Amino acid sequence: MEEMQARFVERLMKDAASDPQACSTAFAPSNIALCKYWGKRDAILNLPVNSSLSISLGSLGTRTDVRRIDAPADAVHLNGLEVPAELPFARRLSGFLDLLRPWLGAGALEVDTRNTIPTAAGLASSASGFAALVLALDRLGGWGMDRRSLSMLARLGSGSAARSVYDGFVQWHAGHDPAGGDSFAERIDSEWPELRIGIVELCVEEKPVGSRDGMNRTAATSALYASWPAQAAADLDLLRNAIAERDFATLGRTAERNALAMHATMLAAWPPLLYFQPGTVEAIHRIQRLRADGLAVYLTIDAGPNPKLLFRSSDEPALRAAFAGLRVADPFGAASPA
Amino acid sequence: MEEMQARFVERLMKDAASDPQACSTAFAPSNIALCKYWGKRDAILNLPVNSSLSISLGSLGTRTDVRRIDAPADAVHLNGLEVPAELPFARRLSGFLDLLRPWLGAGALEVDTRNTIPTAAGLASSASGFAALVLALDRLGGWGMDRRSLSMLARLGSGSAARSVYDGFVQWHAGHDPAGGDSFAERIDSEWPELRIGIVELCVEEKPVGSRDGMNRTAATSALYASWPAQAAADLDLLRNAIAERDFATLGRTAERNALAMHATMLAAWPPLLYFQPGTVEAIHRIQRLRADGLAVYLTIDAGPNPKLLFRSSDEPALRAAFAGLRVADPFGAASPA
Repeated sequence: MEEMQARFVERLMKDAASDPQACSTAFAPSNIALCKYWGKRDAILNLPVNSSLSISLGSLGTRTDVRRIDAPADAVHLNGLEVPAELPFARRLSGFLDLLRPWLGAGALEVDTRNTIPTAAGLASSASGFAALVLALDRLGGWGMDRRSLSMLARLGSGSAARSVYDGFVQWHAGHDPAGGDSFAERIDSEWPELRIGIVELCVEEKPVGSRDGMNRTAATSALYASWPAQAAADLDLLRNAIAERDFATLGRTAERNALAMHATMLAAWPPLLYFQPGTVEAIHRIQRLRADGLAVYLTIDAGPNPKLLFRSSDEPALRAAFAGLRVADPFGAASPA
Repeated sequence: MEEMQARFVERLMKDAASDPQACSTAFAPSNIALCKYWGKRDAILNLPVNSSLSISLGSLGTRTDVRRIDAPADAVHLNGLEVPAELPFARRLSGFLDLLRPWLGAGALEVDTRNTIPTAAGLASSASGFAALVLALDRLGGWGMDRRSLSMLARLGSGSAARSVYDGFVQWHAGHDPAGGDSFAERIDSEWPELRIGIVELCVEEKPVGSRDGMNRTAATSALYASWPAQAAADLDLLRNAIAERDFATLGRTAERNALAMHATMLAAWPPLLYFQPGTVEAIHRIQRLRADGLAVYLTIDAGPNPKLLFRSSDEPALRAAFAGLRVADPFGAASPA
């Protein structure tokens, strides 16, 4: 497994474009998929069954500082706290660093990761986390890689991280190459300043099944998963057209249908996978009522319980009134702090 | 439409086997599908896309009294209260009676329907209601029809009523005949005295989308519906084997997976159809925890929010402790009052 990944990294690397640095820093945004990544065609290289499309969340994401240290092992900090080396978070991160160490120069690293969005919001921090790390390492190593290659490197850490190396709308191409060389993300050259993403934060105690396990269980046991790749492909086309034509109803409807179809494939898995919590169902019904009353609001839900709302800036007051404590992201607003 | 139904009825009717009566009475049980009826191949004759399999609920169901009256129009009573002729319940019932009136003799009827299970339990009373009505009319008209023909007559009133003319396990054959002559229900000759059905009653105010509309919307708009007929066919085989071999884990797992797959096809419809309420999701998670703790309990959910539990009599105390106010049906217990 590590060998396949190492060979993949080797092919991506060129001669260093500039001098290595002693330290570096980078920011990467969280992203919300409007057409979901659901199912792997290769679990080692994180190659997806279907292409996906996302919107990055502007200034909501992860800032990562990387520094060379004179120590026997890496030091990992998350949100200001040191993470013991034996915890899964530190082990996953160090494993990823090991893969890249031949191109970083010898020695241990200190990695300081800060998420600019609370964990309670239930946004996948692994996407922005691995993207920020790869961007920071590119500067540290003086690699000067292009974004396309960086997206493939981030993909090795976490599939959806491939999309978080860009702002705005992003498409991650599934690709066909068994070696993974054509499965990269790309920015879609469209801005949509009125677009807003609202995050409904639910209080949830239970630790859900991880999305990696969820994908595997669904692909292996759900009879309905057979319909998913074709639906995702059709939805992606609809979304690209909707973005090009600023057709908000089609964008919202397609994103909502895509997300619910993904959850539907899970519900039909065995054992059944239900990421919804009571508050999720309440929010879905509330959104259907708001829409019946004429409000243009749609939702998407990832492999977790928290709904994310899609709406236009003019409807922000109405949605803040309907969802107390709604956190609103402005994807095309102030430049991200990267 | 009425003409097609009238022709279907005409083919079923034979010469009266005995004298018509002035009044008659009959009981039919509610039934819970373990493999769901979901999708029609003919909406006028109520012909299903897939065969289904159910368990009748013993003494929980509908008792119907029918009496010839000297009046200008039918009189309809539901649970002791007169139902005005213009309400949907009375109109649907009178429309069905009109279809059969040529074989009943001239004159109006009084129909007195009493459900032996509270409406709050969310059991489809149209299934037991139309089955009891057809059984009562058979006696009133002196038709002496066989059960198979009675199941087809009940089917015209409400699809799942075809299954409620029998006790125990029942299979409703989808059939192939476009005229509907081979789409009847049949009793499966197996008893399973330990089997229990628990009904979780949720407090729900919203009136959900009717199952007829739900089916149509799903078949027309859900990309995942394409997978449903094959899954239903496979599940039906598994259930028949599980019944023959008294394999409770397979029975429960298959019923749960079948029900959730049906709900999954709806979730992927547009507009999305979500019959779940917050309490439904809570119950699903609770059942998964109970099962993880070693309790053999499974669930099924119809086109409504209320979960129905499948378990064995020895686990009844544990389930009553986990679900306050659980209503428990004993399908093979005391003979039904019919």
